[in-house]
Amino acid sequence: MTAKPPLEFYFDFISPFGYLAASKIDELAARYGRETRWQAMMLGITVMKVMGLKPLLDTPLKGDYVRHDVPRLARHFGVPLKMIDEVPSPLAAARAFYWLDDRDPALAKKLAQRLYPRLFARGEDISSPDSVAEEAQELGVPRTETLAALQDEKVKQRLHQAVEASIARGVFGSPFFIVDGEPIWGCDRLWMVEKMLQEGRL
Amino acid sequence: MTAKPPLEFYFDFISPFGYLAASKIDELAARYGRETRWQAMMLGITVMKVMGLKPLLDTPLKGDYVRHDVPRLARHFGVPLKMIDEVPSPLAAARAFYWLDDRDPALAKKLAQRLYPRLFARGEDISSPDSVAEEAQELGVPRTETLAALQDEKVKQRLHQAVEASIARGVFGSPFFIVDGEPIWGCDRLWMVEKMLQEGRL
Repeated sequence: MTAKPPLEFYFDFISPFGYLAASKIDELAARYGRETRWQAMMLGITVMKVMGLKPLLDTPLKGDYVRHDVPRLARHFGVPLKMIDEVPSPLAAARAFYWLDDRDPALAKKLAQRLYPRLFARGEDISSPDSVAEEAQELGVPRTETLAALQDEKVKQRLHQAVEASIARGVFGSPFFIVDGEPIWGCDRLWMVEKMLQEGRL
Repeated sequence: MTAKPPLEFYFDFISPFGYLAASKIDELAARYGRETRWQAMMLGITVMKVMGLKPLLDTPLKGDYVRHDVPRLARHFGVPLKMIDEVPSPLAAARAFYWLDDRDPALAKKLAQRLYPRLFARGEDISSPDSVAEEAQELGVPRTETLAALQDEKVKQRLHQAVEASIARGVFGSPFFIVDGEPIWGCDRLWMVEKMLQEGRL
């Protein structure tokens, strides 16, 4: 019997819904004996450039809804949340993520699991190379190496390719799951992710 | 002890997600001893004019997702579905809805409960005044009265006011629920509607 492929979990570092999903998805997958594969995507490219939409918080009516929705979902998920005023750039975080991912996916996931609460639980910056290097250092990655990688053209290209690949797979939101071929969008669809894990079909 | 106010259910006649929610919401509310108040909204005005977005099916990536998502949700909900190729105009349906609503909200709801499966279970037109009058006639409303009402400037204004009122309340999608003040968007959030009904808070 071959092991089933990992559940694919796409997220943007600036997405509070991605943060909420990130806090649950590994535990949910593990309950069904499944691994997860985390991949950063970028709403700024997908939603604005490819889909031609606006940033969520700048969209009339929906922006207000999201500001109300995120805190209540965080309570529901039992996850700490500090609402942020300004949306940071996810570039440094996403570049460092893929740089580590090529070396060790588990390490990249750990970095994401540090950066997400840094931004959304403590309200601290994640956009500066320094802040990303600081979190990587806590995982044993020398600070100077991370800072050098963030300047590396190959690392920038790696992120670019990953974002293009996510778009080619139809990923347009954060969080976005692909479970045995089924695309599932949104942290309010964890019930559907679970149904897929449990029953193997929708 | 005063009875609790009805659960408010907003929907657009052209929305398959609204159709799916419409098939469940009264039963869900009744389980908690609650009534529902149905109100038509118009995505064409709210989403395109107020929010500045595109029609869902014309949005890159998301359009394909929705085409895949609606049938699987219909299976999940156990509701018959016939995918439609062209999105009809909801104007006649929505005007007739509010015309009846002012006379008898229960009758307006019954009309919606006939028009939704006409479009989404049988794939038949709901955009012509004739088709709307036909369904109203099955509820005992003389065909000529419905056809006259659909030409009435006051009826057109009534819909216009209702749509403006929905926007003023922050309603931006279909389905959209307001449960004791809590706004809840999407037929994938029925779990949240139920939590609100059960616990009185989120």
